[in-house]
Amino acid sequence: MEGDDKCDPDRPAHPGTFLAGEARQSDSQPGERRIDFPVSVVLPAGGTGERTGLKTPKQFCSFLGRPLISYTIQSFERVSWIQSIVVVVAKENMDLMTDIMQRFQHRKVRAVPGGSTRHRSIYNGVLALGEQKEEEEGSVSVDRPKVVIIHDAVRPFVEEDFLYKIAMAAKEQGAAGAIRPLVSTVIATTSEGYLDHSLERTKYRASEMPQGFTYDVISQAYHRCTESELEFGTECLHLALQFCGTNAKLIEGPPTLWKVTHKRDLAAAESIVKETLSRSACVITGGSSCAETLANALQKAAGAVDMTLDIVPDLTGDCVTYLLTECNFIQVSVNRCCLTELKTLLTDLEEENRAVLQPPVVIWIHLSSLEELSVNGTTPGPAAIMDVASAAKLRNILLYGVWLHQSEVSESAEPLKRAPRSSTSTCRLQTSVVMLDVTGILDAASQVLAGVFRVDAVSPEIHN
Amino acid sequence: MEGDDKCDPDRPAHPGTFLAGEARQSDSQPGERRIDFPVSVVLPAGGTGERTGLKTPKQFCSFLGRPLISYTIQSFERVSWIQSIVVVVAKENMDLMTDIMQRFQHRKVRAVPGGSTRHRSIYNGVLALGEQKEEEEGSVSVDRPKVVIIHDAVRPFVEEDFLYKIAMAAKEQGAAGAIRPLVSTVIATTSEGYLDHSLERTKYRASEMPQGFTYDVISQAYHRCTESELEFGTECLHLALQFCGTNAKLIEGPPTLWKVTHKRDLAAAESIVKETLSRSACVITGGSSCAETLANALQKAAGAVDMTLDIVPDLTGDCVTYLLTECNFIQVSVNRCCLTELKTLLTDLEEENRAVLQPPVVIWIHLSSLEELSVNGTTPGPAAIMDVASAAKLRNILLYGVWLHQSEVSESAEPLKRAPRSSTSTCRLQTSVVMLDVTGILDAASQVLAGVFRVDAVSPEIHN
Repeated sequence: MEGDDKCDPDRPAHPGTFLAGEARQSDSQPGERRIDFPVSVVLPAGGTGERTGLKTPKQFCSFLGRPLISYTIQSFERVSWIQSIVVVVAKENMDLMTDIMQRFQHRKVRAVPGGSTRHRSIYNGVLALGEQKEEEEGSVSVDRPKVVIIHDAVRPFVEEDFLYKIAMAAKEQGAAGAIRPLVSTVIATTSEGYLDHSLERTKYRASEMPQGFTYDVISQAYHRCTESELEFGTECLHLALQFCGTNAKLIEGPPTLWKVTHKRDLAAAESIVKETLSRSACVITGGSSCAETLANALQKAAGAVDMTLDIVPDLTGDCVTYLLTECNFIQVSVNRCCLTELKTLLTDLEEENRAVLQPPVVIWIHLSSLEELSVNGTTPGPAAIMDVASAAKLRNILLYGVWLHQSEVSESAEPLKRAPRSSTSTCRLQTSVVMLDVTGILDAASQVLAGVFRVDAVSPEIHN
Repeated sequence: MEGDDKCDPDRPAHPGTFLAGEARQSDSQPGERRIDFPVSVVLPAGGTGERTGLKTPKQFCSFLGRPLISYTIQSFERVSWIQSIVVVVAKENMDLMTDIMQRFQHRKVRAVPGGSTRHRSIYNGVLALGEQKEEEEGSVSVDRPKVVIIHDAVRPFVEEDFLYKIAMAAKEQGAAGAIRPLVSTVIATTSEGYLDHSLERTKYRASEMPQGFTYDVISQAYHRCTESELEFGTECLHLALQFCGTNAKLIEGPPTLWKVTHKRDLAAAESIVKETLSRSACVITGGSSCAETLANALQKAAGAVDMTLDIVPDLTGDCVTYLLTECNFIQVSVNRCCLTELKTLLTDLEEENRAVLQPPVVIWIHLSSLEELSVNGTTPGPAAIMDVASAAKLRNILLYGVWLHQSEVSESAEPLKRAPRSSTSTCRLQTSVVMLDVTGILDAASQVLAGVFRVDAVSPEIHN
């Protein structure tokens, strides 16, 4: 996509949204506030996805190799003060949900079967939170929550800051809900289908998710409401008002609360994740001065396109943080270097469990001189890299290789030779003997980062 | 993206939406209805795009090489009974708009400068339609319209069927507008920010675009309304009611009326165009029996993935229609064939002006035997094809090549050799000597079709 993107309100503020929960907990975010009462989440996910035009309910549709609901779960799982998440799914999807929880190692989550309507499903989820204590044998004991947050499985980009506001307001007021400005004018129609009147936009708001309630308010509201409410009602805030006399506090939410409704929204969600994942990278120089020169040039060029490159000699000491939080690594190797440092990086990433939720991307830049190229056997060739890439791909790490000849830095980005691809489709390695200037490498790197899943999603016969 | 997509309500019903207007007019669509009174369109496009988070106003943001507004214009231009389109743009964007009209050869359109608010801009557009007759010297003379359709530049996927309904209802009732069900519950808030009450969803609708008015109603409404209405009003239907006593007829529109509001929506729009463009292809066999065998197998496999392949011996006679309407061509050539038939196809596409709005995609499948491969000079090699592809790319036609060895059809899709890429980044050719079974070719072809612009959009150093 073309266009500028300096201040995208779509993009979650913290790229960390997409990092593994485990890694993030050690990471103290600016503005993070603690909550000292138990908070749990109910995620109704029983929808049939009619409006997406997909056979698979939209919450189970995948993009970038992962179902939508896993992104939503991740958004909650990474919030340290959220103790548990109950996902309510249709009975026929219980196995699918269990499989997703296992594959993506979601640990704070359990699935319970839903009811015949949205309200019955949420009620099931709330009831399950009440019973939780007895059931949790063998796992971390969980208190009955003080506050229950209800969210949609199809709003994957909810952020910690906003959840904090909802949880605090719910505890104080009994109920709280997200609102957004109306996108369209709302009009009343006559029974014959003509315009009756239009509402004054400023007086009304769209009610969105998440909403928060004290456990007592939401459980009483459901306990007291009628069968008809459970069958036809749409709005939890309304039940809290009607059956508990609780006027919900309304809080203006960010555009990221947006809901995946149509099939096109899956593409929109994918674009947000891709962009968020490709905003930063860690360049590892190995301490070599010419690698540092290259890294500095890359960093400068990256800044111009709103991408952050941090440069480190290696990933030891304080720099180990990158191993826990960064998704993208550019390893620069110099003349006659063997593959050791690259292999170490790959092993470290695997050991830190960084490849569960999305594949880390490693771009290996081999800086060499032309003389070196002419001497066989002293430098790892494309075949050796491809073996490493094939093995990495099996562990969900994407490795790309770029050969760079220092003596022939040119203005034009002219590839001299593309190595043959490996014979298995599990190898995603891009190997090129290229003569690139700094901008060329950065282009290549940022394209890899922006397009990493794109590459992964297409046929190896056409793309690489 | 993964998931099924048998009946996507997102996708415009007629892939023809994306075909060149000229080509489509000779093409009688099922269900096309004629309108015998003059209809013109006002497209307010003066927005600043704040909500997208982009510096460029969203109507000028590009995807797949073309600005959003050009897609919207195309949607109207292809409707034979729409006589003219006035785009209202901010003064500072007049040059940009003129450039877009020239580049994409939009012929029914002219740009006029906008006012300081949406209503003032629309009013300018309506006034311009009234003055139109005198101004149009040297071009087709255009009547003052009976009906004016007002639409948003950022709703690119409006369809002819719905425009017909709006135009007919506007002529009969004086005013007509699109409505959609409310996506969220609408709530009224107290002045302290608490829930007051929620509206009963079924009684209200979201007012969307397009709207239609008789020229007299819309021009009188604007003539009579106050400065305050021009400054703060949001709803043309409301002005028609208030100042002309005209109750608009409300017509439920399809989900495709959806508006590009946020940056993420550009990705969604891109996905819709890509998918729409990749639903069909025309396979040209040259009449050879082994090419036909391959084509039949491809056609069968394509049907299973909801893609339509039509098989023709060549593009003469009745089959010339494909040349005018189809976006994707698979040319199958057999042993020792030279490039003549391929070059003829490329020339024909260029002569029919098919590459203006989007690049046609040509996949050239060369069927050969292994013996042939071993004889140098008898078959066009990758280098020859790449020259052709480079030249085609300059004319906005994307050419891909696949070599297929009849004697070695294998289950696995194993590429043997990837040819070196051309030295210029204008060449997008994918050349592979591959051993593919039918599914493999279809995968390759459908990936090319689905990803054609994707390839185009990424750096040649990494993909390609």
